[in-house]
Formats: sequence, C-alpha cells, structure tokens
Amino acid sequence: MLDRTYTDKVTSSDSGDEVAVAGWAHEIRDLGGITFVILRDRKGQIQVIFKEDEDEELFNKAQEIGKEDLVHVKGIVEENDQAPGDREIQPTSLEIIGEAETPLPMDVSKNIDSDLSTRLDNRFMDLRKPEIHAIFSLKTKAMEAMQNWFDEDDYIEIDTPLISKGGAEGGAELFPVIYYEEEAFLSQSPQLYKQMLMAAGFDKVYETGTAFRAEEFATSRHVSEINMFDVELAFIEDHHDVMDVQEESFRHTLKKVKEEAAEELDTLDVNLTVPEEGFPRIQFDRALEILEEEFDHVPDDEGDLDTKGEKLLGEYFEEKGHPAFFVVGYPGEKFYYMQQVENDEVASRKFDLIYKGQELSSGGQRQHDLENLEKWMEKQDVDK
Amino acid sequence: MLDRTYTDKVTSSDSGDEVAVAGWAHEIRDLGGITFVILRDRKGQIQVIFKEDEDEELFNKAQEIGKEDLVHVKGIVEENDQAPGDREIQPTSLEIIGEAETPLPMDVSKNIDSDLSTRLDNRFMDLRKPEIHAIFSLKTKAMEAMQNWFDEDDYIEIDTPLISKGGAEGGAELFPVIYYEEEAFLSQSPQLYKQMLMAAGFDKVYETGTAFRAEEFATSRHVSEINMFDVELAFIEDHHDVMDVQEESFRHTLKKVKEEAAEELDTLDVNLTVPEEGFPRIQFDRALEILEEEFDHVPDDEGDLDTKGEKLLGEYFEEKGHPAFFVVGYPGEKFYYMQQVENDEVASRKFDLIYKGQELSSGGQRQHDLENLEKWMEKQDVDK
Repeated sequence: MLDRTYTDKVTSSDSGDEVAVAGWAHEIRDLGGITFVILRDRKGQIQVIFKEDEDEELFNKAQEIGKEDLVHVKGIVEENDQAPGDREIQPTSLEIIGEAETPLPMDVSKNIDSDLSTRLDNRFMDLRKPEIHAIFSLKTKAMEAMQNWFDEDDYIEIDTPLISKGGAEGGAELFPVIYYEEEAFLSQSPQLYKQMLMAAGFDKVYETGTAFRAEEFATSRHVSEINMFDVELAFIEDHHDVMDVQEESFRHTLKKVKEEAAEELDTLDVNLTVPEEGFPRIQFDRALEILEEEFDHVPDDEGDLDTKGEKLLGEYFEEKGHPAFFVVGYPGEKFYYMQQVENDEVASRKFDLIYKGQELSSGGQRQHDLENLEKWMEKQDVDK
Repeated sequence: MLDRTYTDKVTSSDSGDEVAVAGWAHEIRDLGGITFVILRDRKGQIQVIFKEDEDEELFNKAQEIGKEDLVHVKGIVEENDQAPGDREIQPTSLEIIGEAETPLPMDVSKNIDSDLSTRLDNRFMDLRKPEIHAIFSLKTKAMEAMQNWFDEDDYIEIDTPLISKGGAEGGAELFPVIYYEEEAFLSQSPQLYKQMLMAAGFDKVYETGTAFRAEEFATSRHVSEINMFDVELAFIEDHHDVMDVQEESFRHTLKKVKEEAAEELDTLDVNLTVPEEGFPRIQFDRALEILEEEFDHVPDDEGDLDTKGEKLLGEYFEEKGHPAFFVVGYPGEKFYYMQQVENDEVASRKFDLIYKGQELSSGGQRQHDLENLEKWMEKQDVDK
C-alpha cells in the first residue's frame, strides 16, 4: 500500500514527526514565495506549506499543483494554531499522482455553490464535498450499528430473490423484467418470503435489501429503487413486541451514531439527541383529533395518515419532547392482512414509527389464520 | 413475547427447573401409555415425555399432536442420558399453536429422503430440515464476520443502483427492465460505481449486493441472480495489496465461523480447517503446466482457466496443504482493463482466489491511465 496516513490521525502532538499523506488539493493559496496547499482526504484536511527560500525545487514543483489534483506528500508535522486542526506539514517530498482536468466542472470547496443539475451531472465531483461524504459515512455507521444489534440478538440475515413472478402487496406498481422467455417483475417487498421463513422455523430474520416500486415521483420520496431494513419475528404476543424491538434497535443505532460519527454530524451541522426510552404509542383516532383540533387538518384518506399529517404530528410531539412515537389502532378494514386488536372492533395490529415528522417504518402482526384471512380477502375483493 | 427459551439453552444442569419451549413436533413415538415428542426449534431438539399414569388429561391432549404441529410446552427439566442432549422435559402444560395439514407433503426428519423436486415444491418444509437451516445460519455468521472485518478497517459500505442504463462489463448478458417509458437493464456489477467512488475520494468501499447475469444455467453455477461481496480500494501499489486484504479478511471469516458456528458445521458434518497464512500465489503459466503435466488437461480458452482446471488445481494444492491459493499472471491482452505487471510483457494485474477447487473471487488492479485504456479498447474493438 502507498505509504500514507489519514489526515485526522495527524495532530499537533505529532509535531516534529515525519508523516506521509495523500489526497486532493482542496485549496491552493499563492502568497508569493509561499504556497499553501490544503490537502483533503476522506477523513479531513491538512495544510502543507511550500516556501521558496527553504526548498526551491519543491516550491517550483508545487506551482504545478492544480485544484483537485491528487497528491502524495511527505514531511514534518508542525504545530500552528493558524492552520486548520492546529497543525501543518513542512514538506520534504511531493508527488502529483493524478492531474485534474481544467477547468473543473464544479467547485468542491464551499467557495462556490453549484446548482443541483451541475452537481448531478458531475456526481463524482459532488461526492468529494465533505458534506456529501459525511452522509455516506454516517449511513455506513448507522447500518453497522443496526445490523450488529440484530446479529447480537441472534437474527438470521436473509437475501430474498429480487426477480419475482408477481407482487407481494397490493397498491404499488411493479417494474416488468424480461426473464429469458418469461415475464417477471422486480420485487416490491420481501414480505411473503419472510413469512414463509417464519413457517420454516427461522423465527427471527432480517434483510438489508432493495425493493422496487414503479411509482412516478413528484416529491422527495422516490421509491423506484429503495434500500430497506426489513425484519420479521415469530412467537410474539402482539404488535407491541415488535414495537419494543424497533424502539430498542433504533435507540441503539442513534446512540452509536452519536458516539461514533461525531465528526460527520459536526460536518453536517446536526445536533443529534437520542430520544428517551418509551416512545409514546398513540391511537390513530387520537392522531386525527390532534390534527383537526391543533392544525385544522383532515387527511384525505380517512383510514390512514398523509405526509402532511405525519409532519404536523411530528411537530406536535417533538414540542412535547418526543421526536419519535408510534401510531397504533389503524382501522382493520383497510389493513385486513393484519390481526385485529382484541376487544376492539375497529383497530388492527398495524403501527407506524414516526421520527421527526417522517414515517420511518411501519409494521404489525400479520393475520396467520387462513380462514379469517380468506374471509377478509373476499370482503375486500382481493384475488386469492 | 411468548414465554419460551431455545432448546439449546436447556441443559442437563437445569435439572429440576421449570422451562418453556416452543417448536415443531419433529418426531412422535407412541409406546402405549407413554408418548415421546421430539420438539424442534431453530437451535436444536428436546424430548418431551407424556405419561398416561402421571397426568391423564395432558397425555390425552398430547395424542392430538401431529407431526410438524407447532407446540408450546412448559415443564420440568430432567437429566436423562437416553434422551437427545442428555435431558428431557416432564411437561406441566401443552398448547398446540398451529396444526400441520395431513398428510405432510414431505418428511422433515431424516427418516425419509425426499427428491429434489418435492423439496423445491415444498420449500417452506425443506427449510425446516436442520441441515438446510444450518446453511442459512452459517451464511449469516460468515457475512457478519466478513462485514465486521471491513467495518473495523474503516471501509464505507455502499449500495449502488440495481437498475442501470447499460452493462458494466463485456461478455455477460443483461436482463431488460421496462423503466417507465425507458429501456433499462438489471445491474451486472457495481464495478463502474466503485471506481467512480474511488475518484470521489471514498478510497475504501464494500458492497454486499445482488448482481444479475442473463446466462442460461447448465451447471450448479447459476448466475441469473447472485449475491456478491464486492470491495474496492485505492492507494495500492499493485494487486498484491488487494490479495493481502482478501487473504486476511477471508482467514478472519473462516476463523470466526469455526469458532461461532461449530454446531452448524457439526450438523453439516463439515470439518473446517482454516488455511495457514501466506496463500501461494502461482503464475498462470505454471498453473497450465501443472494441469498438463499432472492431469493431461488443457483448458479450451488459452487465456483463462476453466471450471475443470480450477477443480484439478484445487486437488493438487490441497494435497500439498494449501486449500486456498491465488492464481496471478493472467495474460494482459485478454484482461486489458487491468494494469500490466511491470517488467513482464505478458502478465496483467488480475488474480483469482481458488478455495477447495472453486473460484471464490477474482480481482485485480484496474487500468486508470485513460490513454492506455483507450489504446487497448481500440485494439480489442470495444465501444468507447
């Protein structure tokens, strides 16, 4: 491997040591006889100072560095409270590994903001922005924490087929695939496979997979190709057991992210608070009441919440100190494939988890009584 | 959650304690006045004894248990060296949670072997077999170990799009998708995205994703929809750095599996030996020599190994104590998108890892010099 260390591992306490770093020329400032190069790698940035009167040859070579060139620098660490991270490098060697084309299609440093279409057309450049980078790094850490929680609790990780013969759920549209001589579709959800695995005795499974929905997008919710964290467990009493699992794994993940991705959160200017234990579990009826009384808002679909409703409820509960809460008691008529709540003629065992005004996940206890399910399918005019 | 514990947590040292277990009636033996039920959950099996002269009501209820019914049993643990796992349960309560249809479409215990088509037609039953179960559990533990190795080494986990505009590599065929009004294809490989992320400064990434190849299958290698563990890293000297990573992560994974999946390996009757450090790295030319000299085998394609060749080489090296080895020095003409080995007019920086006679993975150092790549693409008649 190339001799180098990440910039975040170089601190002022290394003063006097020799280090090697490699990364992109984020900013170049020419002060006449002195050139500052800010070198950026995926962990941070460090300043390198080239001085004409100290090493003319190296100084001249540094004049060839262009913005976003990939460079490999060796040198001595020096403390400097004027420099980013309170240290800089006095170089002893410089190699330009790769040259960027000029002019650059867009700016990576914060100096100039590019518009969204320029950013999307130059995605490899856009991904160099420390803020965009931080999102990917954050996601890795969140997923790692999430998976570790479920691994720790002895769940089996599954990979269900993505090419399927038909849809798993009504409503959403499917993408057709030409599968050799047959018609097939991209999978909408691993739901039926998960349930089959329960019947096969797997008892607790999760999948970190992709699902596809052929729904044209008009909002920031683009579901054509989505990553899902999908869980199924058997031997539960009711949907409250599932909510317990969800709350615990989610709080664990937020805690881990807060601990282990402090720098990424800082880069993104996010102050993450881990919600307290015991997320409220509010009844759907009560949610509708709050929306009408507090915000004069009535969702179109009388059996479900809408995006605006979720956002408003999010505000309402966040103000009361609950950024995360469950909504339960959705009408069983609409969610007939869920079990019914005992001693409640209306409510199903479906729930949604809302976090900061967004539906983060939904779940429930599925109907496993075949007779009951068939009765409902008939009533709802669903093909058996 | 239902009050229960996994059967592998019930040991003879719990003798006298009350436990609750839940699972499937794996075997039922009626001895007249005594009925033995072997209850199976995903962790193992335990014997439950119903005696007519001890609790007639419970005994009578037990007569209703059919093979593969789902039951919930509470009772007292007793040591018994005649029983599987040297312990059994003297029941105090029994609930039949779910009844299996009779006759069963296939047998789950080892008593009767079903043919493959019956097994595939009744996949949910086949998955109940402890041996099939063990494969899934093993895979979960192997993936967990693999991911943890890369997480530990600070790789970023990525999820690249599965619907794409075209193919990433020549040769393999694509599955067409109807994407709204456009033609698209299922992704063949995340290769180009990975390389783009290197240019974006991610420097080390991995993906545990799906790849699709529309190649009709004639062998046990069915590549229509495959799960891959895909890695890319930048700032390497040459492909030997990649082989180092691969060997280290693979040995770590095998070690972890040996430690943490001992029971699954036992169920599958596999005696796993972790190969020693320093997998041999043999030249492609030498591999061809061995095949011809030792086995009188010459692969059809003179620039690559074939499945039979890999198998024979596997035997050859396994006998010498090396179940795992790399093949390097593949001809650069065929693998033009890889870099060339310095001071070698023929060899590319491609490698394959062969384990127990199977190509487990391949890799290499890609060509990043645009001029050089374009020269080769022209020579090979590849569309730019």
